[in-house]
Amino acid sequence: MSDVRVIIQRDSEREERVVTTGTTAADLFGGERTVIAARVGGELKDLAYEVGDGETVEPVAISSEDGLNILRHSTAHVMAQAVQELFPEARLGIGPPVRDGFYYDFDVAKPFTPEDLKAVEKKMQEIQKRGQRFSRRVVTDEAARAELADEPYKLELIGIKGAASHDDGADVEVGGGELTIYDNLDARTGEPCWKDLCRGPHLPTTRAIPAFKLMRNAAAYWRGSEKNPMLQRIYGTAWPSKEELKAHLDFLAEAEKRDHRKLGNELDLFSFPDEVGSGLAVFHPKGGVIRRVMEDYSRKRHEEHGYEFVYSPHATKGKLFEKSGHLDWYAEGMYPPMQLDEGVDYYLKPMNCPMHNLIFDARGRSYRELPLRLFEFGTVYRYEKSGVVHGLTRARGFTQDDAHIYCTREQMAEELDTTLTFVLDLLRDYGLTDFYLELSTKDPEKFVGSDEAWEEATEVLRQVAEKQGLPLTPDPGGAAFYGPKISVQAKDAIGRTWQMSTVQLDFNLPERFDLQYTGPDGAKQRPVMIHRALFGSIERFFAVLLEHYAGAFPAWLAPVQALGIPIGDAHVPYLREFAAKARRRGLRVEVDASSDRMQKKIRNAQKQKVPFMVIAGDEDMEHGAVSFRYRDGSQENGIPVDEAIAKIVKVVEERTQI
Amino acid sequence: MSDVRVIIQRDSEREERVVTTGTTAADLFGGERTVIAARVGGELKDLAYEVGDGETVEPVAISSEDGLNILRHSTAHVMAQAVQELFPEARLGIGPPVRDGFYYDFDVAKPFTPEDLKAVEKKMQEIQKRGQRFSRRVVTDEAARAELADEPYKLELIGIKGAASHDDGADVEVGGGELTIYDNLDARTGEPCWKDLCRGPHLPTTRAIPAFKLMRNAAAYWRGSEKNPMLQRIYGTAWPSKEELKAHLDFLAEAEKRDHRKLGNELDLFSFPDEVGSGLAVFHPKGGVIRRVMEDYSRKRHEEHGYEFVYSPHATKGKLFEKSGHLDWYAEGMYPPMQLDEGVDYYLKPMNCPMHNLIFDARGRSYRELPLRLFEFGTVYRYEKSGVVHGLTRARGFTQDDAHIYCTREQMAEELDTTLTFVLDLLRDYGLTDFYLELSTKDPEKFVGSDEAWEEATEVLRQVAEKQGLPLTPDPGGAAFYGPKISVQAKDAIGRTWQMSTVQLDFNLPERFDLQYTGPDGAKQRPVMIHRALFGSIERFFAVLLEHYAGAFPAWLAPVQALGIPIGDAHVPYLREFAAKARRRGLRVEVDASSDRMQKKIRNAQKQKVPFMVIAGDEDMEHGAVSFRYRDGSQENGIPVDEAIAKIVKVVEERTQI
Repeated sequence: MSDVRVIIQRDSEREERVVTTGTTAADLFGGERTVIAARVGGELKDLAYEVGDGETVEPVAISSEDGLNILRHSTAHVMAQAVQELFPEARLGIGPPVRDGFYYDFDVAKPFTPEDLKAVEKKMQEIQKRGQRFSRRVVTDEAARAELADEPYKLELIGIKGAASHDDGADVEVGGGELTIYDNLDARTGEPCWKDLCRGPHLPTTRAIPAFKLMRNAAAYWRGSEKNPMLQRIYGTAWPSKEELKAHLDFLAEAEKRDHRKLGNELDLFSFPDEVGSGLAVFHPKGGVIRRVMEDYSRKRHEEHGYEFVYSPHATKGKLFEKSGHLDWYAEGMYPPMQLDEGVDYYLKPMNCPMHNLIFDARGRSYRELPLRLFEFGTVYRYEKSGVVHGLTRARGFTQDDAHIYCTREQMAEELDTTLTFVLDLLRDYGLTDFYLELSTKDPEKFVGSDEAWEEATEVLRQVAEKQGLPLTPDPGGAAFYGPKISVQAKDAIGRTWQMSTVQLDFNLPERFDLQYTGPDGAKQRPVMIHRALFGSIERFFAVLLEHYAGAFPAWLAPVQALGIPIGDAHVPYLREFAAKARRRGLRVEVDASSDRMQKKIRNAQKQKVPFMVIAGDEDMEHGAVSFRYRDGSQENGIPVDEAIAKIVKVVEERTQI
Repeated sequence: MSDVRVIIQRDSEREERVVTTGTTAADLFGGERTVIAARVGGELKDLAYEVGDGETVEPVAISSEDGLNILRHSTAHVMAQAVQELFPEARLGIGPPVRDGFYYDFDVAKPFTPEDLKAVEKKMQEIQKRGQRFSRRVVTDEAARAELADEPYKLELIGIKGAASHDDGADVEVGGGELTIYDNLDARTGEPCWKDLCRGPHLPTTRAIPAFKLMRNAAAYWRGSEKNPMLQRIYGTAWPSKEELKAHLDFLAEAEKRDHRKLGNELDLFSFPDEVGSGLAVFHPKGGVIRRVMEDYSRKRHEEHGYEFVYSPHATKGKLFEKSGHLDWYAEGMYPPMQLDEGVDYYLKPMNCPMHNLIFDARGRSYRELPLRLFEFGTVYRYEKSGVVHGLTRARGFTQDDAHIYCTREQMAEELDTTLTFVLDLLRDYGLTDFYLELSTKDPEKFVGSDEAWEEATEVLRQVAEKQGLPLTPDPGGAAFYGPKISVQAKDAIGRTWQMSTVQLDFNLPERFDLQYTGPDGAKQRPVMIHRALFGSIERFFAVLLEHYAGAFPAWLAPVQALGIPIGDAHVPYLREFAAKARRRGLRVEVDASSDRMQKKIRNAQKQKVPFMVIAGDEDMEHGAVSFRYRDGSQENGIPVDEAIAKIVKVVEERTQI
């Protein structure tokens, strides 16, 4: 028994320690309940790992990204064991951790019922209490095949060992290294209760799982291919504490309440009629008014910022996309062509940039005209696979608030700076306030333009981004081949991050279109081209705002800004007069003159998330006043009519949320 | 020689006269120089026609519609004679009168040159002076064949005698009746100089042609078919006086100056890039700003008039157009389908109505919601044949200011009334003021819906139209199969009529979509549906306004409302300050700071048709003033800056033409 020197590293602190041979990571971090694994020489290991001489060992906390993955992966094993205890004929697919949870796929005769899931969850709690130990052992292929003879899918995974694939998230290392099996060992006897082909690592015992819950089940093809058998997948979630589990479930419930597809239907904003087809929305009047106000305001702001408005068609000859290169590198994302005039292929445009280049190029340009900022609400069509189409956030047709800026190289820095400031200001006007920026830089394998141009542009983008004083995340290699970009990531009311605006430099299209301007010396120059969209897509931004506000839009965007609710029929004409007066001030006001009782009308208005309920009864009429009721249930009584209208006008004009 | 009783009819006056046998129409109207033919028993005859007993004879004046056609037809004969005198090998096609003129087609070895046309015109003047007599004689088929043995196209026309066709404007009656030849007889000798197979009638002599001019030549297939030989067509025009000819030529010159395609290019408003394709325009910044102002104003007015704004995609499954019936009766006007998702045909929409019906039908509707007015700037795509595509007035993609109104039968009259008033008011706001209405009523061969519904709707439309106090032209049988309509015809600045807005009832789509609302009694009812577009298409309306104003848009629409023109470089900062101040008032102001001299800048501004040229020199600067120069060359000096800005603002806000 000799001494072993290890270095224990925590964040930037390093501590050298001498321990005896056979010391495990658990021994090193034994007193720390939150440590559930170790990173040794960069690789994740079980706490049972025996440290070797000269190794650097880091504790892995359960709340870290790696820790959460290990927790969820171990919970997946527990679930698989529970399923096989309850359904012995169930055969195992794969069971990896995923974002916020895990799943496991099973080959079973029939889909799991909600009752099955409850039973599995109960059995998992039992296994969790049993405190089984997760135990790793290295096996040969032959041994693994013999042990897992009853598990055809596992055999298949052993069979493809060496294939350079992980099966998106598969928990078996098939690309080389040792083959390992994890046993779940009985806490008292040490006898194996269950096993799985798995690279690990895992929690020390099932009791180390603090909190979990099964979420739902779904069908899934083995290894994602329609040619393979259909398996049954169970999704679950697991967290370092009961509080965190509850917070996650509350978050999901809140996100579900805010789902824009659900709200879109409840608030009668838009729909996806079957006759129209996948990913193509129609906006109903109430959604239409929100969208129109969004667009009007955006137009106004763009006008103030020196943008010029252009219009281009949705269909064009393929010739344009040959010139732009889209048919080379983007054809899969485009709708198929329509053949007109005996043999000419026309395409729906997936992007507006080629059109704007034609406008730039419609006549000679002078340096005096730059920066030239061409703006269009351009509706584009992209052939998303039907499986990924999702409401308004991933549609097949959507309208970009698209602009292309042409400027000189000297103007680039200032133009990017003002553009980014404009972008962020406008997003703030729509109620998003929590941002970080991402800087996507060159993929050394795939780019056009000179290294020097990339360096200059990237440096300018970095300076411009830093100037905003917002967190800046690097995205090395994440740029498109034609130039670096900044993207604005916004957090919504429940903390979700959405990629919003992008400011993208382009070294490719000015070359392809041979864009030129005449400089002060009469020589032809190539302009710098910037693509930028603030909303990205109006439809998607609409969905983000709808989820951000949970449908309770601020008054300036609300389809109905104020709804008159009479206490009795006698007060209807009074409120109609109020409404007419308010409408003359440009407000969107309605009166609920239906035969419903007042309480029902208030409930309806609440459901419709009307910002100002304007209630009137005898007393109000006597005093020439109305009462406000807000969405939070609070009330303000006896406001003189003119004052009430002025108040609503102010809230609308200042775009404040009430 | 016995007496013949004839009735001479002029307008509503009838005069009975007894004349001797052999009296011709010329004898009856001999003293009247403007009479060039007669209508006998409803049929047009030469003045040489011998009147018969009991016949009613009307004089046909040269300026009447029939008179003009005869004049132009006779001039076509003179042109054909001139061509054959100059080019004896030229073979004759047909030579009918057309709108404002005539043409004749010739089979010649090579196209006519401009010099050829001058020679032909000169020869025609010679023939005109010769005073040849047009003389009619009836011939048998055999005789005609023998006489015209050298004219293969004429032989072909004789051959198809009996076919029920006139060859769009052919001057030979082939559908029955007598076959006639007109000889041009020498004034002195009476010898035939030239002849043509022709039904007539004609002027008495070539000297009766007061004024004519050849316009241009073009190629044309014999009988309009690509399978036939290519002939050479010469167009000419002829008028009852030299003054009228001149007025017509002036009108054409003016129309050419106003041609929107030409102005669109000169003023840098839009273009049709070759990469995009036929009939698909891109709007440049200056055209874009005009279009945006047009749309903004239209949106504002529609909002005030209780329209709700909806949005729908440009592409949709064919299923929608099966439901609407468009694939049955409009497929030829549609772009070909795109096949998505393995076998589903998607089409570009040629109309927005089916989309709006889906929105109406997205949920149950109550009578309380009616009238429901759904408005959209909906861009549609129609597969116009490439031969008829014409600039912005006949495009393949255009944006309709489209609305569909759903109302009860009881609301129909008031809704149509307010709609028509709204339509006319809005057109007036854009500067069109001279209207007449057209009422298109049922085609008894082709309609859906009950006679009763048609009668009621037509009567309502008539009343509504009459109430406007505008001329009302009936268009019997001109309605689409699905309902009657009113169309608004507007005259532009040079007197041309453009069909603008339509207000169209539809008995078909509410049935096909099974549209319903719940009435006050709880029973389901079918709504009345009204289609209406004010501009028709924004692109076309844009073109009409561009031609109407000859590019000199009123200030509220002008892309640049005011242009600062410094007398010297020293005045540039002063005008820049002026411009900044004016921009804060929402005006579109630029300063010409180029190195051009002032006179050149004024000429440029004139060419760009800027409404306010704002000139400043030392004296202006001293007094804090500017000088206005208008497009008509007039000038107003020493206007204090604030007053100057206020003046422009007023002209813009009141939408006045200066």
